[in-house]
Amino acid sequence: MRTLRTIFSLAAILLVTAAPARTQAPQPSADTPAILTVLNKSVDDWNRGDIDAFATCYKNSPDILFMGRTIQHGYAQMLARYKTAYSTPAAMGTLSFDQLAVQPLDERFATVTGNFHLKRTAVGGGDSNGYFLLVMERTRAGWKIVRDSTTVIPPPAAK
Amino acid sequence: MRTLRTIFSLAAILLVTAAPARTQAPQPSADTPAILTVLNKSVDDWNRGDIDAFATCYKNSPDILFMGRTIQHGYAQMLARYKTAYSTPAAMGTLSFDQLAVQPLDERFATVTGNFHLKRTAVGGGDSNGYFLLVMERTRAGWKIVRDSTTVIPPPAAK
Repeated sequence: MRTLRTIFSLAAILLVTAAPARTQAPQPSADTPAILTVLNKSVDDWNRGDIDAFATCYKNSPDILFMGRTIQHGYAQMLARYKTAYSTPAAMGTLSFDQLAVQPLDERFATVTGNFHLKRTAVGGGDSNGYFLLVMERTRAGWKIVRDSTTVIPPPAAK
Repeated sequence: MRTLRTIFSLAAILLVTAAPARTQAPQPSADTPAILTVLNKSVDDWNRGDIDAFATCYKNSPDILFMGRTIQHGYAQMLARYKTAYSTPAAMGTLSFDQLAVQPLDERFATVTGNFHLKRTAVGGGDSNGYFLLVMERTRAGWKIVRDSTTVIPPPAAK
């Protein structure tokens, strides 16, 4: 009886310790809800057409970095790029994120991956879809993006 | 005379303190040489055709993440992807990096941006170029990549 219990206990320990290696999914983080709240607010701000409010999901610092085909350094340059690239409500379209996944690095930093979808009319530039890796920092003003690598998936070539 | 000297001193202080805000370039880091050594070694390992050695620039952990069009979690999955995508010397080609820029996050983490160039024959898949954002961690085994967002620039469409 005791032997059986020992075997069951050992099996339970093995199952628990083996689980992370098998699934290799991001570990849940206590900070996930707070981080998702920041990103969801940024989507709401975008969809109200308020780029200045949207931009506050980034840290207001000259050290932040936004990387697409070109690199912008600093809050001012990042904001100017957004205002140039999305100068009309039609160009801003309607933003949504999906498959958001938060992975902590430590107590101060976390990364987030996800997909973005920009629903737009032809006048606004047509739909735009892609994915991103964000590095977020716990600042005094809450979780903020400090590095953003966003990739636009090229639309299929016109026939 | 004293007033003039004071004005010059003040002007010098203003110039120095204004410089970072104007240029907004990444601040130099004492860890930059060590980080670049890791990345340069990975290029040498790649160009010797040794993917197992190349992969040691990543942290051997189930928590690491490699993001392109798909996401790989963990060292084993990342290594398997490399071995599938680059299964022959021709497919590996000759790798080089340029415009590497290191930006510290804190004492433990830093990010690196840069471009990659893969010189390959038509049999190997042709040249491949793109850019990346890496998150690197100071581990007991040295600086290691823990997040990798790599974007391949689509080649111009064939006419």
